[in-house]
Amino acid sequence: MSAPSGEDDLIARYFRPIATDLGAFGLIDDAAAIPGGRDDIVVTVDAIVAGVHFLPDDPPDTIARKALRVNLSDLAAKGATPAGFVMTLALPEIDESFLAPFAAGLGEDAARFKCPLLGGDTVRTPGPLSISITALGRVPPGQMVHRFGAQPGDAVVVTGTIGDAALGLRLLKSGSAEGPRDVAAISGPVGRYRVPEPRVSLVPMLREHARAAMDVSDGLVGDLGKLCSASQVTAIVEASRVPLSESVAHAIAEKRFDLASALTGGDDYEILCAIPRERLEVFRAAAATARVPIKVIGLFEEGYEPPHIVDEAGQAMTFSQPSYSHF
Amino acid sequence: MSAPSGEDDLIARYFRPIATDLGAFGLIDDAAAIPGGRDDIVVTVDAIVAGVHFLPDDPPDTIARKALRVNLSDLAAKGATPAGFVMTLALPEIDESFLAPFAAGLGEDAARFKCPLLGGDTVRTPGPLSISITALGRVPPGQMVHRFGAQPGDAVVVTGTIGDAALGLRLLKSGSAEGPRDVAAISGPVGRYRVPEPRVSLVPMLREHARAAMDVSDGLVGDLGKLCSASQVTAIVEASRVPLSESVAHAIAEKRFDLASALTGGDDYEILCAIPRERLEVFRAAAATARVPIKVIGLFEEGYEPPHIVDEAGQAMTFSQPSYSHF
Repeated sequence: MSAPSGEDDLIARYFRPIATDLGAFGLIDDAAAIPGGRDDIVVTVDAIVAGVHFLPDDPPDTIARKALRVNLSDLAAKGATPAGFVMTLALPEIDESFLAPFAAGLGEDAARFKCPLLGGDTVRTPGPLSISITALGRVPPGQMVHRFGAQPGDAVVVTGTIGDAALGLRLLKSGSAEGPRDVAAISGPVGRYRVPEPRVSLVPMLREHARAAMDVSDGLVGDLGKLCSASQVTAIVEASRVPLSESVAHAIAEKRFDLASALTGGDDYEILCAIPRERLEVFRAAAATARVPIKVIGLFEEGYEPPHIVDEAGQAMTFSQPSYSHF
Repeated sequence: MSAPSGEDDLIARYFRPIATDLGAFGLIDDAAAIPGGRDDIVVTVDAIVAGVHFLPDDPPDTIARKALRVNLSDLAAKGATPAGFVMTLALPEIDESFLAPFAAGLGEDAARFKCPLLGGDTVRTPGPLSISITALGRVPPGQMVHRFGAQPGDAVVVTGTIGDAALGLRLLKSGSAEGPRDVAAISGPVGRYRVPEPRVSLVPMLREHARAAMDVSDGLVGDLGKLCSASQVTAIVEASRVPLSESVAHAIAEKRFDLASALTGGDDYEILCAIPRERLEVFRAAAATARVPIKVIGLFEEGYEPPHIVDEAGQAMTFSQPSYSHF
């Protein structure tokens, strides 16, 4: 009686091939199903919008990967193992040259992180392209790692390096980085901005050792403030201890970038966590096994005020905007 | 060190008060958690966009209710009991006069349908307002009701009345309905367009009796075609049996509306299902207990072709667009 509607056709062509999980029912149903079981189901949602969270001319596969990975980063910080995701794709137009690499990148990451596409909704929008993903994960009952729970005396620990994505965004915006359009070349600051590396391998260690954790998405200083606020503690951090990549250190040395921007820039998708001092060595060894570099950058302390970031002279640093906000 | 960011402030003011479920952790965490358990977790996602799925000047509380209810309708059609939802709100601006009634309407419906707000993401968009909701539900293991499963000989059954929302949209677009802006007056065709009534009370009966089911969101004819296609059957439906409200029958009689538009218009959010004939009387009695009107409108038959809709003269009706598509 009819040709398939545009949306059904789009789903069949691009997304059915990557929705291979049994519970996705080939995307021909109105909902997906995953088995319950003893574990708690952890739910997180993050959306990215063209021109706000990614650049409109970023390669389509990196946009898909970022949309999924920012959610995987949340699950990891909560100590949750990925179980699957659903996606709302708001498209200004149906464009084969966008959708084909977008779906391919999404499918590769779904397989790599064992987080299958379970379902979705595709809507037409006159506005910018946006992708909202809801990811589901599992933790043993009651073992989700929270923002609250940090105790005075715990170490302030961060994974990886901070500030790369902020530098990458600056390079992209200033036109001084062309931005490689192929999948392979997703390294360096631009790669960090476009395709974050969610710290999923750290999940068991966070559950076992972290008293509180979150991922660093809106800038280290602001996010540490949120963790302190939720935990009703404060913290003191030595800025010189914050781990920087060679690219970032080099850019700061050359005055092309500054430490404050690295500490507040956002899009790091590293894990910030509170580790009891007596567990630090065990946690460090476990993280090394998972090949995740960690660094102690300060201490949580009693108090209700925002965290203090001190420079090498011991002076408190101030920031005009400690946290990235889209509003 | 800083005033709360715009997004945190917005969440604290409007959405924390309605996120009362324990698993929402007061929206101060990066994720929510719900207990697993013996049941399967059913996941569905639907987004609505201003100017596409609702009108930009619809009352804010009805926009919130519609965003949630279209997902509750999906859960109901799958035989799932609501467990909670997460929301992505893409806002062009922060507007108190919009957000306050929006959050109030959302909170009321979350309480009414026992589907708590578990978390969300709020993003700034230069585009139109859009709301994407992922709803979670529960069914006993393996008992989700699917689009597939209808058998030749099963009755084609639909709940409520069809075409009201399409008429309501036409009235709104033609300017012949003012559209009441208060919550109480959400009846009639305009009310059906703005605030659908998800058939949640039918959930146990669908699980027990329906071989296949879906909600009618994109037009009865097109959606029946999808159910037939998924079930690898066809169907014959007598158009004169399709239940119409007095408003719709009256508008058709006065030539202000037509049957084809009622059958293909979309936004009905009624349940379409396949009921084995020997269970019809039991299903009818059970639905009556739940105060949900049901009507047999045809039969599923062997075959792979799209369903046949016949008029009172027994002639096959043809439709230029059997299903609403946004693309």
